[in-house]
Amino acid sequence: MAESKEESKLDLISRCIRPFPDFPSEGILFRDICPIMKSPAALTAVIDLFEQHVLECHPVVDLIVGIDARGFLFGPLLAQRLGVGFVMVRKKGKLPGPTVSVAYTLEYGTAEAEVQEDSVSPGQKVILIDDLLATGGTLFAACELMKKLRAEVLGCLVVVSLKDLSGADKLKPHTVFPLIQFC
Amino acid sequence: MAESKEESKLDLISRCIRPFPDFPSEGILFRDICPIMKSPAALTAVIDLFEQHVLECHPVVDLIVGIDARGFLFGPLLAQRLGVGFVMVRKKGKLPGPTVSVAYTLEYGTAEAEVQEDSVSPGQKVILIDDLLATGGTLFAACELMKKLRAEVLGCLVVVSLKDLSGADKLKPHTVFPLIQFC
Repeated sequence: MAESKEESKLDLISRCIRPFPDFPSEGILFRDICPIMKSPAALTAVIDLFEQHVLECHPVVDLIVGIDARGFLFGPLLAQRLGVGFVMVRKKGKLPGPTVSVAYTLEYGTAEAEVQEDSVSPGQKVILIDDLLATGGTLFAACELMKKLRAEVLGCLVVVSLKDLSGADKLKPHTVFPLIQFC
Repeated sequence: MAESKEESKLDLISRCIRPFPDFPSEGILFRDICPIMKSPAALTAVIDLFEQHVLECHPVVDLIVGIDARGFLFGPLLAQRLGVGFVMVRKKGKLPGPTVSVAYTLEYGTAEAEVQEDSVSPGQKVILIDDLLATGGTLFAACELMKKLRAEVLGCLVVVSLKDLSGADKLKPHTVFPLIQFC
């Protein structure tokens, strides 16, 4: 009974992910999550499933850490459900005050991810969240940021994971919990 | 009684806004809302006050439209409270499929705001949301995007408004509801 309810939530979410070939560049099949955001029921289902996973697998969590910009769509909702705070990992230059940063590789060139130094305290248990896991570059950088702040990363949550790009391997030993997987 | 509760919510939110002088450039006093995100109670208070305002002033709303990136922190929470969908206004090049875009002026140079063409239907009643109103350039562009899609803008919500920069004037005839005002 519980399982079939979960299945139907996943079906609802899947139906709200649209494929767009050749975006943002040729050969890339973009998975658009905008219809999830437009459907109150689908968005509730996403947060339900994330919450259920966290309660089962990580009963003690101090903070949800979301990745700029689409991690901000889901992170605060999950944090409010769990009654914990939310922290932003942003592109370099967006956060005031003392920060720590980590460079990571993009398809073309590099970028830097940044977090405020006082955002996470040593020993705090954090869960990272983003909309999509591709090659894992940004989430890997976010894990490195958490390591610099001596936080304990319990795991990463994503709505969509693109299996063939092996992002989950890059993030090991950290675990990734995706709601939907595509090749 | 109700008023004092509201006051205490505003106090809680105010205490979670940190000033950072000379960020991102000299002469700018940056208002950092990160501590709101880290405090579950302060974030709940923000959404409570937005919800209360919307229920009182705009009983019929179809969609919440949030501005990239910090509008994404608050918009989905408010949309879920109201049981409506959430739509993203993004920087150019981030959204797949047919889009409409509007150029706007920044302190140095120009930028373009974009929204998916099918995100809002003609006649739908929308509320725009962002973290902060300064000169109003981005929110103005978002209002223009909604006009292009023939949506009805009911108003704009921001956590912080910087009065001296006259963003609210720029947005007229649309109204702005700020939780906290600074000079």
